[in-house]
Amino acid sequence: MMSQISSALSDFFFEYETPRQVLVRNRRVGVVCRLIQLGVLAYIIGWVFIYEKGYQSTDIAVSSVFTKMKGVGYTNIEGRERVWDVADYVFPPQGDSSFVVMTNYIITEGQKMGKCPELHGKHNCSSHADCEGGSFKRTGHGQMTGVCLNATKTCEVLAWCPVEDDGDVPNPPMLMSAENYTLFIKNSVTFPLFGVSRSNLVENIDTAYISKCLYDPTNAPLCPIFRLGDIVKLSGFKFETIARVGGAIGIVVDWTCNLDVDVKHCIPKYTFHGLYGNAAETDQTRASVGYNFRYAKHYLEDNEQKRTLLKVFGIRFDIIVQSLARKFDIIPTLTAIGSGVGIFGVATVVCDLVLLYLLPKREFYKNMKFKYTDPHVQPDSESLRIETSVYYTFEANARQVQGTGQSNDPDSEACSTETEVCKK
Amino acid sequence: MMSQISSALSDFFFEYETPRQVLVRNRRVGVVCRLIQLGVLAYIIGWVFIYEKGYQSTDIAVSSVFTKMKGVGYTNIEGRERVWDVADYVFPPQGDSSFVVMTNYIITEGQKMGKCPELHGKHNCSSHADCEGGSFKRTGHGQMTGVCLNATKTCEVLAWCPVEDDGDVPNPPMLMSAENYTLFIKNSVTFPLFGVSRSNLVENIDTAYISKCLYDPTNAPLCPIFRLGDIVKLSGFKFETIARVGGAIGIVVDWTCNLDVDVKHCIPKYTFHGLYGNAAETDQTRASVGYNFRYAKHYLEDNEQKRTLLKVFGIRFDIIVQSLARKFDIIPTLTAIGSGVGIFGVATVVCDLVLLYLLPKREFYKNMKFKYTDPHVQPDSESLRIETSVYYTFEANARQVQGTGQSNDPDSEACSTETEVCKK
Amino acid sequence: MMSQISSALSDFFFEYETPRQVLVRNRRVGVVCRLIQLGVLAYIIGWVFIYEKGYQSTDIAVSSVFTKMKGVGYTNIEGRERVWDVADYVFPPQGDSSFVVMTNYIITEGQKMGKCPELHGKHNCSSHADCEGGSFKRTGHGQMTGVCLNATKTCEVLAWCPVEDDGDVPNPPMLMSAENYTLFIKNSVTFPLFGVSRSNLVENIDTAYISKCLYDPTNAPLCPIFRLGDIVKLSGFKFETIARVGGAIGIVVDWTCNLDVDVKHCIPKYTFHGLYGNAAETDQTRASVGYNFRYAKHYLEDNEQKRTLLKVFGIRFDIIVQSLARKFDIIPTLTAIGSGVGIFGVATVVCDLVLLYLLPKREFYKNMKFKYTDPHVQPDSESLRIETSVYYTFEANARQVQGTGQSNDPDSEACSTETEVCKK
Repeated sequence: MMSQISSALSDFFFEYETPRQVLVRNRRVGVVCRLIQLGVLAYIIGWVFIYEKGYQSTDIAVSSVFTKMKGVGYTNIEGRERVWDVADYVFPPQGDSSFVVMTNYIITEGQKMGKCPELHGKHNCSSHADCEGGSFKRTGHGQMTGVCLNATKTCEVLAWCPVEDDGDVPNPPMLMSAENYTLFIKNSVTFPLFGVSRSNLVENIDTAYISKCLYDPTNAPLCPIFRLGDIVKLSGFKFETIARVGGAIGIVVDWTCNLDVDVKHCIPKYTFHGLYGNAAETDQTRASVGYNFRYAKHYLEDNEQKRTLLKVFGIRFDIIVQSLARKFDIIPTLTAIGSGVGIFGVATVVCDLVLLYLLPKREFYKNMKFKYTDPHVQPDSESLRIETSVYYTFEANARQVQGTGQSNDPDSEACSTETEVCKK
Repeated sequence: MMSQISSALSDFFFEYETPRQVLVRNRRVGVVCRLIQLGVLAYIIGWVFIYEKGYQSTDIAVSSVFTKMKGVGYTNIEGRERVWDVADYVFPPQGDSSFVVMTNYIITEGQKMGKCPELHGKHNCSSHADCEGGSFKRTGHGQMTGVCLNATKTCEVLAWCPVEDDGDVPNPPMLMSAENYTLFIKNSVTFPLFGVSRSNLVENIDTAYISKCLYDPTNAPLCPIFRLGDIVKLSGFKFETIARVGGAIGIVVDWTCNLDVDVKHCIPKYTFHGLYGNAAETDQTRASVGYNFRYAKHYLEDNEQKRTLLKVFGIRFDIIVQSLARKFDIIPTLTAIGSGVGIFGVATVVCDLVLLYLLPKREFYKNMKFKYTDPHVQPDSESLRIETSVYYTFEANARQVQGTGQSNDPDSEACSTETEVCKK
Repeated sequence: MMSQISSALSDFFFEYETPRQVLVRNRRVGVVCRLIQLGVLAYIIGWVFIYEKGYQSTDIAVSSVFTKMKGVGYTNIEGRERVWDVADYVFPPQGDSSFVVMTNYIITEGQKMGKCPELHGKHNCSSHADCEGGSFKRTGHGQMTGVCLNATKTCEVLAWCPVEDDGDVPNPPMLMSAENYTLFIKNSVTFPLFGVSRSNLVENIDTAYISKCLYDPTNAPLCPIFRLGDIVKLSGFKFETIARVGGAIGIVVDWTCNLDVDVKHCIPKYTFHGLYGNAAETDQTRASVGYNFRYAKHYLEDNEQKRTLLKVFGIRFDIIVQSLARKFDIIPTLTAIGSGVGIFGVATVVCDLVLLYLLPKREFYKNMKFKYTDPHVQPDSESLRIETSVYYTFEANARQVQGTGQSNDPDSEACSTETEVCKK
């Protein structure tokens, strides 16, 4: 019993199967097939491996962004001079990756709770009947009291009075000076799969450099300090317009890294593009252009709750971190090879089709390639064809053997090498 | 030398190997194997290609979201009427993708720094000893002064006084009117890999349409304006409850696009679901139900720093952009084909096992398929087994040969290995 | 016609090709190849399947995070005691996944719009000429009036006066007590592909437990309540320093789930690490260490707009949700198998190279494996080599043929098709 197993094992180990093949020597087929095979090979090596880097596995980073604005704005409204610093024009203040820089605003000061006429156009009326008491209008400023005011021909509402009139947006924008503000971006990415972590303050971007550099696509592509005017220009907007009605700009920090080379080549690339509205879809987004939001500062005056309402027009910056790291990995490599070999198989199949169905000599090659076996002859045309052919060939064969004395049966090679075996 | 190379080359090009095969004509095996092969084929074509779209590569979008609320709330507390507009009930104001709409609140007005009794229940005491001076309680309102007040039987604390009493949450919620607020979502996605970028204001969603449409799953699935009440209902909550204690709702904007068809079919799909708590885990999330945060408005009264503290209960909306674009790509296609062919290989292996180990005629087929070679005969059971088997088949063979003149002996190197066979 | 098709079909179904193989019984080759094959097998099963879980498809979650701070801070500046509660020290208040806890600050009270000297060092001057009127300095506090003040030897600016002097950061930090604040994290993840959704309040993390637990890497790894001091320590910072100048800490909630096992094993893992600056890049990030932002509280005093400016130093927490769920899927499984078989093919190729080019008996094996076919002999060295070898083998062959009267030359089918070749 044991011996059987062991012998079976030894057989297993000392034997090796390799497919028998027909070596077709035919220019057409040969060339065709070789070309197909070379094509496949070229595809696998050239495309999958070199171009698509199929031997690498990829990972996306977890990232963290911190931003800081610098610069001072100045407005002069009817002689009332004032400056705007970071604490005034950045929302929210804490340096998120998505924030708004105020560039224009409509201010409504000293609003307090009370009854006042709705804006003209918002809700016109001819009689009290038009102003249903206690009802709202989605786009209105308050709750209707049911009174229609003759003076304005609009309904009276309970609201923060006076109601804001955002009819005409200041032009030119209040804070054109925003063009000169600067944005500092601090971004760190970590590729968990590869355990690599990088900051956009890469090698030799040190304090000294940062203190004086300003981002420039060509001259200072790694400087993390950006002039707002430049960002807007690079994203294809006109500062004047975007500053007036507001807009949204995406700052993409692109970390495309090949970690098979030194990690210090893994550096960020900054690109800028307008959000909700590139050339392609302007006509769609015209649906609601601009960017603005309302924001109130509350205070107490003479024991009365009051607020200053600001309709803020501004540029919203979204800092979008895109990352893709690649590193050699055995799995994708072997998978690529494996399926490459598979495709090779396809090539062979194709060639065989050519060989067996298209060539004039197909019958000949078919017989070379296939060996028919039917233990109990089946009475169907096919098997008959075979039989005869086989039978007939046997005759021919015999003759041939005597006649030409030429045989190219490799099998009999066996004997040629061990003549002694056959001789006896 | 040159000629050698060239000839070698010409050989390489004019030759072509194709495996020799045995064509087994056997109903059982044939059917079995064909079925297996067809199964594999069906799997590759039907499943991998058609169903799983294995011929496409995928990409995830970078997206940007901007939101805007509209609507007015109204409260009447002991005759003090007031309305709440966007600037009052949205946090943060600047239209982020994650924001809170206040639906209920506990207000504590006129807090100022000072010493006052801790809430009853928060930190009861019977004697000063119970109130260690200078110490804190994690859930307390301030720093203990070390005094135990008889009036309230609680410790005295240095805190914003009077301390907030959030014992009972207003019911019904203060701002049930929030149900009628509307949310406008502006979302743009960009698939960097395919260079496609879309906005949720797709074709024929223009200003005119937006000005009057309201989202409805069936009638207006592309309208980007949502009624809060609808959102809450669609996410399976009861507005009354969520408005009272607060809650979090995820608005998923799903961009699943097949970019092989016209890009205008790449449209968003909106779905709504409660966060932290689907049916499955209610009992877990009961651990901390609701959503609220504290928020203070500071002001100066009689040169004294004061603040109005708001404990805000609200609905937090997270707008989650899910995206998956697919486009034809040669790599995954060929990889799928390649590994498909590989699986075909598996099918063949299986069939061979059937053929060589399960069929009664296995010995016969084995001899058909395999050709044995051992230059120096090994005296082990196995080779003997072969010998006999071959011997046997040869007999059968010979008889058959005489009979039909047809031989289907694979290769008589039977002889080279079994001398005695050749002897006769 | 029909019959032809049907017969062709029946042939197709009742036939089955299997490659003919040479069974090489040779210790060296056998062992080599078996080992290679076993190696491949081991790789596919052991590595791709068991280790890399190649039979699973993966998905990334959409997640939602809500945070809540608790705790009270205390400061005593020249006898002016005050406490800081959540509404005072958390920015933004609404419990986002990224927020700042104030630990130190520079306060500038009662700023109002006006003219005052720029900070010393910011913009020194010797004469009015040095202070160009109407111009700004990027890092300055306001707009220059064109006056150089003798008293301070700095330019006069229009700004919020008095200008903030952030020269020296308070040390020790104002709010060391922040160390004892606690952070509660509520996080829910949904794996859309698998339709599984989980909350970090997993099974048996109930109200009772939460009310008293405190996160500890070893003893309470699932408690969602974290002490700030612990977080800072675990992320490798010294609280004292980070509290003074500020810093950013990433709290990674890692959801790595194998959904083939019970979903209740899908639990979060919390890790903490400093952002923008791990050991590797300290020298880079020194470029701009710390974290701070400015924040103003506006108020009205004697009908004058005033503000209290806070330069907030704090710890910024980014809660980063990392997720990767795996579940059995037929596609990757079969792809892996398929390409595995492909690699097997590679193994065979390698073995054949050994067999056909390295072994001393290569000629012999070549003849075993290959069958040469050239209908019209080409006069090139190669084919000559073959001819001879073939011719030579014929002798042996012929004898053998006469001997046994048995022909098993499949090649002679050749003759059946090109008789003319045979005739001569």
